[in-house]
Amino acid sequence: MRTAYYISDGTAITSEVFGHALLSLFPTEFNHITIPFVETSEHAERVNKQIARTFNDSGERPLVFYTIVNSDVREIVSNSVGINYNFLDQFVAPLEKILGIPAKPEKHRTHSIHEKTYDIRIEAVNYALANDDGANTDNYHDADIILVGVSRSGKTPTSLYLALQYGIKAANYPFTEEDMGDMLKLPPKLRRFKQKLFGLTINPERLHQIRSERRANSKYASMRQCRMELREVDNLYRRESIPFLNSTRYSIEEISAKILAETGLQRKKY
Amino acid sequence: MRTAYYISDGTAITSEVFGHALLSLFPTEFNHITIPFVETSEHAERVNKQIARTFNDSGERPLVFYTIVNSDVREIVSNSVGINYNFLDQFVAPLEKILGIPAKPEKHRTHSIHEKTYDIRIEAVNYALANDDGANTDNYHDADIILVGVSRSGKTPTSLYLALQYGIKAANYPFTEEDMGDMLKLPPKLRRFKQKLFGLTINPERLHQIRSERRANSKYASMRQCRMELREVDNLYRRESIPFLNSTRYSIEEISAKILAETGLQRKKY
Repeated sequence: MRTAYYISDGTAITSEVFGHALLSLFPTEFNHITIPFVETSEHAERVNKQIARTFNDSGERPLVFYTIVNSDVREIVSNSVGINYNFLDQFVAPLEKILGIPAKPEKHRTHSIHEKTYDIRIEAVNYALANDDGANTDNYHDADIILVGVSRSGKTPTSLYLALQYGIKAANYPFTEEDMGDMLKLPPKLRRFKQKLFGLTINPERLHQIRSERRANSKYASMRQCRMELREVDNLYRRESIPFLNSTRYSIEEISAKILAETGLQRKKY
Repeated sequence: MRTAYYISDGTAITSEVFGHALLSLFPTEFNHITIPFVETSEHAERVNKQIARTFNDSGERPLVFYTIVNSDVREIVSNSVGINYNFLDQFVAPLEKILGIPAKPEKHRTHSIHEKTYDIRIEAVNYALANDDGANTDNYHDADIILVGVSRSGKTPTSLYLALQYGIKAANYPFTEEDMGDMLKLPPKLRRFKQKLFGLTINPERLHQIRSERRANSKYASMRQCRMELREVDNLYRRESIPFLNSTRYSIEEISAKILAETGLQRKKY
């Protein structure tokens, strides 16, 4: 199996995302090794030795994806025996011409605490946790969005992703059987913030499966209960014109991107 | 201000990460617009019109970062009036030669529910939430790592990031004054899992600031209390040889990457 290295004097997240996207185009498996925070020439030399060992052991030149700000360190890694992808570099000179300004690489401009939006993201994470699962309905005036849906339809992981990646304050509220009665009505505490609501729904088979992993053979997990709850929320979304999304076939990354695209909600971080 | 577009028939996360990393090398601001899930020719035509409008309104050709699997859609976007960066494409043909296999782009291979590790990540998020802040100390046998530290030293956001991004089951436990007594000792429930512990610490000034935002003028937020608690955990980490990290100057991305590098913990997702 071919080995792919991801190397940086920062987190190496950019190298990983780029390399992973490129390699995912190929129908084969790779062995992945990330080495972040390579900040000294000595460390870079050790990395090169490791790459050489991988080459010796496997007989295949490793792929090496790297972004390195420190020029001494970069120079060393660019001479490894691997197949080197300094993938940002070739775009820099043409972009300098287009923008009419020279690039000015600075360490830690991405994925660091120095990003302008860092504190906003942490605050959003704390908000998502404090306002998860209907735990608190008093702070909805601060919410950027309030996700609603039945238990286990994907509200919590989506709230956390919106907070962590985009700095968006997402509360979430689960409709329970208590809310349903004869017919699910929008609780008054939610109605006041109706313009912030976004509904999630899910196929009953999938919901049954997820709930059964939690509480097998319970009423909560039964197909009948899942169908009933989903029918109620579906009716509610349509009656109240609440925008909604069926989460069944989507990852939290996809659900979050779709919510942003549909609502026009402004993210705090790019 | 120059506009950068990020376009994809998926989430556009890869385009955003690449484009953001490239633009962050330049000491200027950009206007960012993401358009995910461009899946039809009609949608692509609308996108091109929007790019043309931006050009007309600003007089500057927008930068367009895109990865699109559908060839019809890609063809249309590649003819926009923007400066087009189909940044993965040029690496594909050389890599086909190296690997000796043709690329086989499939929609949604990254950031989708079809990734092999998707369920593992969601399970890890649920684990992190259920075992946050010492809420539950009965599941530590399932933990990949247990973050320890005083209140507000960065344990919770780091646990969530480890779960969401890497599929790692991270519990976290806050040392409180109750644990301290005359001298902070390792609680028995933690000692049994000592090899899983990783400590966070933080500078007292920063801790004082963070706690003051929560509870101004409290004993909890006082410099004296912050100093005392941090001295106790610092002594504990050294006495018990628990690996630790000072989180003061690091983002959760950096803390997480450093923890992985230091512990050798195996991530579930790349």
